[in-house]
Amino acid sequence: MTTTSEMPGFARDVRLPDFLTQARKLVDSELDRILPSDSIPPTNIHAAIRWSVFAGGKRFRPALLLAAGETLGASLQSLIATACALEMIHTYSLIHDDLPSMDNDELRRGRPTCHLQFGEATAILAGDALLTLAFKTVSEDGKLSATKRPLLISEIARAAGTPEGMVAGQAYDLEAESRNVAVDELEKIHRLKTGALIVAAARCGAIIADASSAELEAVTEYAGQLGLLFQITDDLLDVTATAETLGKTPGKDVRARKATYPALHGIEATRKHLASTHGASCDALARVNRPTELLRSIADLILERKA
Amino acid sequence: MTTTSEMPGFARDVRLPDFLTQARKLVDSELDRILPSDSIPPTNIHAAIRWSVFAGGKRFRPALLLAAGETLGASLQSLIATACALEMIHTYSLIHDDLPSMDNDELRRGRPTCHLQFGEATAILAGDALLTLAFKTVSEDGKLSATKRPLLISEIARAAGTPEGMVAGQAYDLEAESRNVAVDELEKIHRLKTGALIVAAARCGAIIADASSAELEAVTEYAGQLGLLFQITDDLLDVTATAETLGKTPGKDVRARKATYPALHGIEATRKHLASTHGASCDALARVNRPTELLRSIADLILERKA
Repeated sequence: MTTTSEMPGFARDVRLPDFLTQARKLVDSELDRILPSDSIPPTNIHAAIRWSVFAGGKRFRPALLLAAGETLGASLQSLIATACALEMIHTYSLIHDDLPSMDNDELRRGRPTCHLQFGEATAILAGDALLTLAFKTVSEDGKLSATKRPLLISEIARAAGTPEGMVAGQAYDLEAESRNVAVDELEKIHRLKTGALIVAAARCGAIIADASSAELEAVTEYAGQLGLLFQITDDLLDVTATAETLGKTPGKDVRARKATYPALHGIEATRKHLASTHGASCDALARVNRPTELLRSIADLILERKA
Repeated sequence: MTTTSEMPGFARDVRLPDFLTQARKLVDSELDRILPSDSIPPTNIHAAIRWSVFAGGKRFRPALLLAAGETLGASLQSLIATACALEMIHTYSLIHDDLPSMDNDELRRGRPTCHLQFGEATAILAGDALLTLAFKTVSEDGKLSATKRPLLISEIARAAGTPEGMVAGQAYDLEAESRNVAVDELEKIHRLKTGALIVAAARCGAIIADASSAELEAVTEYAGQLGLLFQITDDLLDVTATAETLGKTPGKDVRARKATYPALHGIEATRKHLASTHGASCDALARVNRPTELLRSIADLILERKA
């Protein structure tokens, strides 16, 4: 277990594993193959989909799925389509969260948000299309047995929907704006809005790999902690980073009086919380009886991310 | 084949088949069981989902699925969950289509639209949740073999998405506002926006029933004509009906200069087009070597609907 005190601090130099670079290239190439070309009509909607999907995202969820699946013995070929589906779901959620009636964001990964670039109606439809296409992609993936596909679709749908997933998290988050929230409520929002899909990514990898129930449970716990880690670092960067580093408007959560860990507890307490969360994710990995360096390095990477 | 000249006209008295009443009750009861209770948090989103799902919809797509499935030999138990999934997809599309940036509708089935009642953000999320829950429902339906579920999810996703489905149709429709469109473009919009999901309903019923490829093809053709019939009657009612009968603001398509058959060709030509479309749907049924009265009566019902 690693805690803040054992680490040289947030500025410590971390080599981005080659795995993540390769995963990103592979996912981008497969997404490009799966998504309708923007030369196919209706071109506007396909251009909007591609604008948001190919905006320089880190492909974190697909990479986590690939890492969990490969760690537990699945082939890359059996993992890639589901990995892309998760990125489509993630991108749809960003497009809809950015809408004027939601978070009203203008900048996403350093570029105008989908609705600013294509108009609100097209942005809503682009999100709807990506959500739909995600399920289509898994349902038609010939590299997976037909019996495994519904299991994966169920995992993803639970993590994306309500009351257990992303839609519920966004609903709580909107409702929590402009009022104080307790820590447990804040963690629930994190868990649903960001955590659920991250957990689904790891679990889908494990399911594709035919993991044992003990392995599935360990990976679920690992990813749960990872999701919390991800959201807290996000909130921390929102306070400490600049728009240039971040590629989006920083400080927005604070301005909207949104519930965030740093807003409630301050930066130092947030960093301690980060370290213990990172430790808990690594503890869970210790229960997997295989080499788990790759998954461990992903936890390290999130802990130390700058954007 | 029935044409306008053979029928006593639109005012002819039609007995609503008991089947449709029973199907509606069954679907409503099953939807009530599947959808999260509005006492489960986040309550706002679940209340919004239920507001739109239980607004007195005719459950036409589920009824068509049940009718096609039963005609071809499937059990009701094996059909009902997928039927509900289609109604969820249909309702999601209505919620999103009604949004201010889309059709900006204020009245739906005689009540305020979801975004007027619950706010725009909650309406967007309610639609997202219904779309997600539809796929979850099919993926987890224990009455269907695991191998059949991905086939159905693929059918539904293609019909709901882009470039072959509802999202594409809505994109074309928005783009077609405020300009003249040719007849073939208009029919394409109808086919994608309304027809694709209607065809999917019939095809899903046939797939669950293990229909032969000839039967599947016949049912596909029948439902394609049915979808066209449905949209044209919808456009006609938009011109001829009152808000009271219709339960929504009439004349809206015309005011928005939207492409509709009556706007392009007038009411009389539209009625002739309706009759020939109805005839084509019945011709397709003649190729199914089973009793098809139920499916035929659905085509009759649409032809003669008043709301």
